[in-house]
Amino acid sequence: MNRISVSTSSRNEMIDITRKVQDVVSQAGINEGICVVYVPHTTAGVTINEGADPSVQTDILSWLTKLVPSHQDPQTNFHHSEGNSDSHIKSTIVGSSVNLIVSSGKLSLGTWQSIFFCEFDGPRTRRVYVEILGNRE
Amino acid sequence: MNRISVSTSSRNEMIDITRKVQDVVSQAGINEGICVVYVPHTTAGVTINEGADPSVQTDILSWLTKLVPSHQDPQTNFHHSEGNSDSHIKSTIVGSSVNLIVSSGKLSLGTWQSIFFCEFDGPRTRRVYVEILGNRE
Amino acid sequence: MNRISVSTSSRNEMIDITRKVQDVVSQAGINEGICVVYVPHTTAGVTINEGADPSVQTDILSWLTKLVPSHQDPQTNFHHSEGNSDSHIKSTIVGSSVNLIVSSGKLSLGTWQSIFFCEFDGPRTRRVYVEILGNRE
Repeated sequence: MNRISVSTSSRNEMIDITRKVQDVVSQAGINEGICVVYVPHTTAGVTINEGADPSVQTDILSWLTKLVPSHQDPQTNFHHSEGNSDSHIKSTIVGSSVNLIVSSGKLSLGTWQSIFFCEFDGPRTRRVYVEILGNRE
Repeated sequence: MNRISVSTSSRNEMIDITRKVQDVVSQAGINEGICVVYVPHTTAGVTINEGADPSVQTDILSWLTKLVPSHQDPQTNFHHSEGNSDSHIKSTIVGSSVNLIVSSGKLSLGTWQSIFFCEFDGPRTRRVYVEILGNRE
Repeated sequence: MNRISVSTSSRNEMIDITRKVQDVVSQAGINEGICVVYVPHTTAGVTINEGADPSVQTDILSWLTKLVPSHQDPQTNFHHSEGNSDSHIKSTIVGSSVNLIVSSGKLSLGTWQSIFFCEFDGPRTRRVYVEILGNRE
């Protein structure tokens, strides 16, 4: 298992970790297989989406906050005393892991796809785990 | 493939299955690899989130119902005649499987993470499938 | 890695790809293992849900659009200039891959489960990647 470190600077933030994951894949020496990117945190997630235009990230994050407002919003009536239930809910909606396929030693991403660590309760220092299984030939 | 049985007691409920999944991992004898937890139902799901404070589960379930109300709510206009379209929609939002990484024979969970079976149309008796791939050394 | 081609005919659409994925599994000759179905697009996704009654798909798609309206809706204030931020957001909510378990050479689907390619910005010609890992015996 490989570990990646991510430093976030806002409460809600998407950070492109594609290069770091590809580096792990390259070092693993797996030619054909599966790569799992896993977030061991309960107020963060990971997703694959467009990496070219940063406004896509802005729109994703702002709409997630529209769907799941923070506890200051009077329409929420959250019971969890730490005041970050919105972060936990976003984590379950977005998910704590993604699958990728490794082909010819590289991540088989679509033209516009990047892998994003999703911070929902930052700023914090976070970890990401990466595991790769497959064949070396 | 291993099977876990889960009995639910409410229409919406999160049930911690971490120990049952870890037991399967321990018996499989895989030291380093990937574990897939899969729900073979279309009105349930599985997620990883905080297991320490039960109010996190309460907040997740109540907000999912706020986002996807049942067919009795006049703002919904669901066509599926069984009256559980909300359960199907929650299943797609939360997802029917999670990935975990196995390291040194154990699930690599974060400090606060537990694995939850998510019932969205209970009470029922449900099944969960677990598959583990990797190396024994 | 195997590729499946999918042609969509609406902006939002769910297309059952279960048979195509099972065909790939059958040809791979893997008896016990894991199958990853991966969508290399940022305005589409993949989910597992009920395949028997088409009204379930109708209800899922219409409620996702209720949760994430298009940029013409005045309550959205999207910045991405291509006018398809709703498609990107749905892609992150639904997810770009699913895991399945292969047992006795077949996908271990529940009775009512089908695998659906989810188009959120069609009509288009799309691709789906399938990778299978496991044991041949």
